[in-house]
Amino acid sequence: MSDVGSAGQRFLKGHGTHNDFVLLPDVEGLLELDAATVIALCDRHRGLGADGVLRVVPTALSLEQDVEPLSGEADWFMDYRNADGSLSEMCGNGVRVFVRYLIEAGLAVGPDVPVATRGGVRLAHVEDDGTIAVEMGAATLRGNGVATVQVGDRQWPALGLEVPNPHAVALVDDLDEAGRLLDPPLAGPDGTWPDGVNVEFVRIDEPGHLTMRVFERGVGETRSCGTGACAAVVAARLHLGADAPARWDVDVPGGRLRVTVDSDGSIELAGPAVLVARGHLDLATLTA
Amino acid sequence: MSDVGSAGQRFLKGHGTHNDFVLLPDVEGLLELDAATVIALCDRHRGLGADGVLRVVPTALSLEQDVEPLSGEADWFMDYRNADGSLSEMCGNGVRVFVRYLIEAGLAVGPDVPVATRGGVRLAHVEDDGTIAVEMGAATLRGNGVATVQVGDRQWPALGLEVPNPHAVALVDDLDEAGRLLDPPLAGPDGTWPDGVNVEFVRIDEPGHLTMRVFERGVGETRSCGTGACAAVVAARLHLGADAPARWDVDVPGGRLRVTVDSDGSIELAGPAVLVARGHLDLATLTA
Repeated sequence: MSDVGSAGQRFLKGHGTHNDFVLLPDVEGLLELDAATVIALCDRHRGLGADGVLRVVPTALSLEQDVEPLSGEADWFMDYRNADGSLSEMCGNGVRVFVRYLIEAGLAVGPDVPVATRGGVRLAHVEDDGTIAVEMGAATLRGNGVATVQVGDRQWPALGLEVPNPHAVALVDDLDEAGRLLDPPLAGPDGTWPDGVNVEFVRIDEPGHLTMRVFERGVGETRSCGTGACAAVVAARLHLGADAPARWDVDVPGGRLRVTVDSDGSIELAGPAVLVARGHLDLATLTA
Repeated sequence: MSDVGSAGQRFLKGHGTHNDFVLLPDVEGLLELDAATVIALCDRHRGLGADGVLRVVPTALSLEQDVEPLSGEADWFMDYRNADGSLSEMCGNGVRVFVRYLIEAGLAVGPDVPVATRGGVRLAHVEDDGTIAVEMGAATLRGNGVATVQVGDRQWPALGLEVPNPHAVALVDDLDEAGRLLDPPLAGPDGTWPDGVNVEFVRIDEPGHLTMRVFERGVGETRSCGTGACAAVVAARLHLGADAPARWDVDVPGGRLRVTVDSDGSIELAGPAVLVARGHLDLATLTA
């Protein structure tokens, strides 16, 4: 008994700490991915469902003028699309899943795998236990770093950061302080966040270990955010001062990440990456 | 270039008016499906994501003493599991997706396809345009039918029904009256709903056409509920009285269903059923 309609677009579904993605292998660079298709793919009821789409395409065939020159440094381009169909530069959890696929498909050898993204080339390293570590660059202050976060009547001081996407990190004693995060927290001061902001509530459990919740702009509270984990560690280290450790375990609702800050400020994000399903999709049916 | 890890459990993903399911073909009856696996499969971030799982197994191999005797009437058993891992008798949207798969896989011929369920055999009919109609049985009053539904400070009179799962249907002028349905509406009178209740808010647009919202017990507000659509039509017809039409278009957030009430009270639910993806899953990875 054969499978039904095995023709169509090849896909995989995977996640890193429950930040989940549909991967679309496109080794010949023939797949034209429009916003409507991405939205339909990511729709969790009428599509396959995911936080975003990762098209796997040779860098030389990316057809993006800022990306193609990277083909000398990285064979594969992670064409990342948000669930709303918009383009994105990078995704810390996504790049691990992307590299897991490259390795398992024999498209890259490892343990070091450079990946071209719209934010430049990122170097991933596959560790012996399967954990994948990715260079995320450095965090910079948004404005002077002074920020606030507000939910209902309650307000917290926060640190404003760019990783390079915007984050406001509030250190709290109790992660339940913010209650149910149904609407985006308000972030200040006025004029600091013209394009919105990702908000982290962070509890320092001990030096080198923190637990966090994150509200991603345009999405809602999520189970994990890679750049948010990096931002949380930067804020925790500033809070602890000179004795703060460089390496942190970061517990998010979807699992544990490891964030290490180098002496030059560059950040490494490490964690699991799992592929759970693979098969074929009928893109025409999806968007019909 | 070959696909990655094509071994594993075969699956399909499909939906009926955005009520979505993972189908697991199990033609040899060898798949032991435990609650943990179902929960992991239906998890929308770490699994594939769905409202429920439909195992496709020969009725004679169901290993359920109430189901196996149905093998003379229906070749295939729809082993339906809710996303929380619990067993369920029937699912009006699910049975259409189940039949769509049987037809496309060549496991049934149609246009009439009997399906064994824990609620007995249901007869499905595939119409010329692909719509699938399913006999849902009759609705009966819960208690004397008098019920109430409450959200916050606002209360509506409602009709209490069993289809055979419990429903409280409130007719409203404006579907926004109930606001955001984040928590289960309260339903009365006391003692009427010991196992919870599905709540429908229904606006009669004209005789033969209604629009509804539904809050499913244990799930939340959903884009579609097959038995809820049936309950809504029964309530609308009682409201309109003797001249009420038998056939209704029912608009749910996920699309349009057709509900027809026969003169003997039996209800037919008809609507679309779409298969969007197919492939292989690594069940061991999912539950690891």
